[in-house]
Formats: sequence, structure tokens, C-alpha cells
Amino acid sequence: MIELVGFDGDDTLWHSQGYFDDAQQVFESIVASYVDLADARLHERVLAVEKGNLALYGYGAKAMALSMIETAIEVTGARISAADLGRLVQLGKDVLQHPVELLPGIRDAVEAVATAHQVVLITKGDLFHQERKVAQSGLSHLFRRIEIVSEKDVPAYARVLREFGVAPQHFAMVGNSLRSDIEPVVRLGGWGVHVPYRSTWAHELETTLAPDEPRMRAVDAPDGIAAAVAALSATAAQGTVPDRPS
Amino acid sequence: MIELVGFDGDDTLWHSQGYFDDAQQVFESIVASYVDLADARLHERVLAVEKGNLALYGYGAKAMALSMIETAIEVTGARISAADLGRLVQLGKDVLQHPVELLPGIRDAVEAVATAHQVVLITKGDLFHQERKVAQSGLSHLFRRIEIVSEKDVPAYARVLREFGVAPQHFAMVGNSLRSDIEPVVRLGGWGVHVPYRSTWAHELETTLAPDEPRMRAVDAPDGIAAAVAALSATAAQGTVPDRPS
Repeated sequence: MIELVGFDGDDTLWHSQGYFDDAQQVFESIVASYVDLADARLHERVLAVEKGNLALYGYGAKAMALSMIETAIEVTGARISAADLGRLVQLGKDVLQHPVELLPGIRDAVEAVATAHQVVLITKGDLFHQERKVAQSGLSHLFRRIEIVSEKDVPAYARVLREFGVAPQHFAMVGNSLRSDIEPVVRLGGWGVHVPYRSTWAHELETTLAPDEPRMRAVDAPDGIAAAVAALSATAAQGTVPDRPS
Repeated sequence: MIELVGFDGDDTLWHSQGYFDDAQQVFESIVASYVDLADARLHERVLAVEKGNLALYGYGAKAMALSMIETAIEVTGARISAADLGRLVQLGKDVLQHPVELLPGIRDAVEAVATAHQVVLITKGDLFHQERKVAQSGLSHLFRRIEIVSEKDVPAYARVLREFGVAPQHFAMVGNSLRSDIEPVVRLGGWGVHVPYRSTWAHELETTLAPDEPRMRAVDAPDGIAAAVAALSATAAQGTVPDRPS
């Protein structure tokens, strides 16, 4: 059965992507003074720059700001003013300073899961920003451990679970990203509860998981999380779902 | 006696500050096309901007690049060209991509300490960049654990030692920064081996430790580290240095 439950942070415990989406809109409106957005395919180009910089910058608002500046210089042929580039620096700061707003019902959901299981927080992104959000969330006392990782992939989950001393088959992860929260945990032989968020960064939508994956449950809202974890735990105890090769 | 020894990463295991210093020189040469550097007090101003952004950005090359861009726009009255600001973005990438060059003798030093103690790596800065440097260093197999923290202060060391299950009086930290590597550990009741590096960021020089602090040894080069740890361990075993209030 399931001993340990991990929760994702951004867009699972608190709002995040919306702030990035807002910044993206302001970015486009600034660049629109210089080029035709459709002609310049700005949306595709900034996403391509962000993905190209991912291995160097990692995730987060500083990476966003630097990739926006790079893209803006490129698509305007370096015609963009320093003042407007300064506004892009500020966009990054705005995202870093946004208030931490919990998703409705999530505090109750974490508390409900915590009555039956150990819970930990496993989040990725900018180390400073994530720590500040955890501190401001008012939820940190509920978590036995808080792990901030640079990438949520199979090796990262394997390392974290080794450090926790928990085998993957006794671990479930709760999160909004199939790519980062569910798929790698299921591949390791663990379990996942998918709670979709209203907006997901394109990059996080990539997954090869089947929608009927038996090691995963999807719920519409936080108030379904505890029951989904309990159902997965019962399935795990019955042993009716074969272990995956790790 | 000392059970666990922590090593810092940047400028203790591998060169780092030199790359930031080089970037700083290029930054100044770029801005020098617009303003008189002395009149603009560029050096002081970029340091002030970096320190002002520290609580928001944290440490590392992305923070450096963003603070340079902000400073350059400010001191030039937004007259700097987009192309030159693009060169500042590139300076950040250059720092992130520099090769990992171990300090002479450090591999032998870590191996020597590891024969008598458990060793861990405790480093701060950009999560992505630190992980890449650890991987490229070829030293990661020597460390029982690798902890990347956002700030090396008393609460951070207290948390990490709690996770390791080691009391501070059985822990020594080896590093180049009195402020980040030695002082907080000594304040917790632990021990420190200071190995100065040829260049230290002004911010890291701030300390209130006395030069004759009995819980600290200073060595000139990595080949002195193992003996210094052994000497501190002997002192710890004798109990002649009183415990500090934590």
C-alpha cells in the first residue's frame, strides 16, 4: 500500500502558470510596437528560445525574463529600446513577487491525505522562488520534507525516494503535470493522482502515458485527492496491477 | 569528534568567481561606450543592484545577467543599444557554460578526508548550474549526499544537518567563504576549515568571526585540509573548546 504521498507545488498547491501567462501577454504587447506578431510568429519563437535555453537556465521567472529579452532583441533586429527591455526585466520581477494564493480546497486536501500518509512536497523551479512560496503558503508544517529539484524526471524521483527510504511502489505523487508529476513516478513503479490546472505550459503537456493508465487517477478538483489516494492505495494492497519494469 | 565533513563547491572544489570577474570586466567595457565608468560609479552601482536583487533572484549567473542589464539601462539613461544588452545576456550564458576546472589538489584532499569521515557537498547558487557542475566535476561519487541550498545561513545548515541526522558538534565544513561556509556552522556549534580563494565576491567577505576562532582552522591550499580536519576532530574529542550556545 501507499506510505508516502508527494505533492507538487506550482499549480497544484498554489497558482503559478497564470502569472507566467500574464507576463507573456505583456511581453507580446511590448514587442507588438516593433513587429507584426503573427508575421514574427512571436509566440512560437519565444517558446523555442525558452526550450532551447532550458538545459542552461532551468525553469522559473529569471529564465523567462532572459529568454524574453533574447527573443525580443532577435525578432526586432535589435531595434527594441533599452527602456522596453527594462520592462521585460520587470516582468520577471513581477512573477517572482506575486502573492502566493492557494488553490481552493487544497489545504483541506493536504490535511486529509496527511491523516493517513506521510506527505512531502516535491517541486521544481527557481530555488529561491520556490522556497519563498513554500514559506508564504502556510502549508510547510504539513510536509515531512520539502524537496526542490531542477528537473522532475525518473532519476530525480529515484534519488529523492532513495533519500526518503521509500520504495516507488509505496509512493504516490499528486500534481497537475502529467509530464513532470505523474509519468516519471508511474515509470518508476509508483502511483499518480493527476489534478489538471486551468492553464499548463505547452512544455508540460508532453506525455506518453495512456489515459487509462491503471497506476493513475485523475480528479477534477482538490476535494477528490484524498479519495483517489485511498483508491490507489487499496489497488496497491490488492496487487492486481502488475509492477512495471523500472 | 567529527563524523561528517561538508565541502563547499564554488571556489572550494572548482573555479567559479574568476568567471564572474571576467564577465564583470566585459560588462564594464560595454557600458564604458556610453558613460564614464568612474563618474557613473559603475562598480558600486552594479554591486548595489545585485545586493538589492538578492532576496528576489538569489545567487548565480542568471541573477548576474539580469542585474547587469538593469544597471546598464539605469546608468546609461536607457541609451544603451539592444545589441549591447544582448551581449549581457550572452555573458550570463558564458558563465553558465564555463568548463568545470577542479582546484589543484582538491581531488586528493576530498579523497583523504573521505578515508576517515563521511563527506557531503553543500553548495549554493543556481540549482541547474550547480547540478551540472557537480556532474562534470567527476567528484560526485565521493559524496554521500549533495545538497544545493538557496542561502548558506544558520537555519539552512541546521535543516541540512537534521536531515543528515548529525549533530553540529560532529560536523565540520570546508570552504572558501567565511560568511557562508564557516561562520554559520561555527555559530551552530560545528567546526570550520577555511581555504581562501584568490578572488572572493565582496558580499562573501562580510563576517563577524574572530580570526582566532578556536572552532576554525585556516589552510593555504587543499593539501592542508585533511590535517586541519583531523586537528579539529582531535580538539572536538578532547572537549577543550566549550560548546557554543546555538
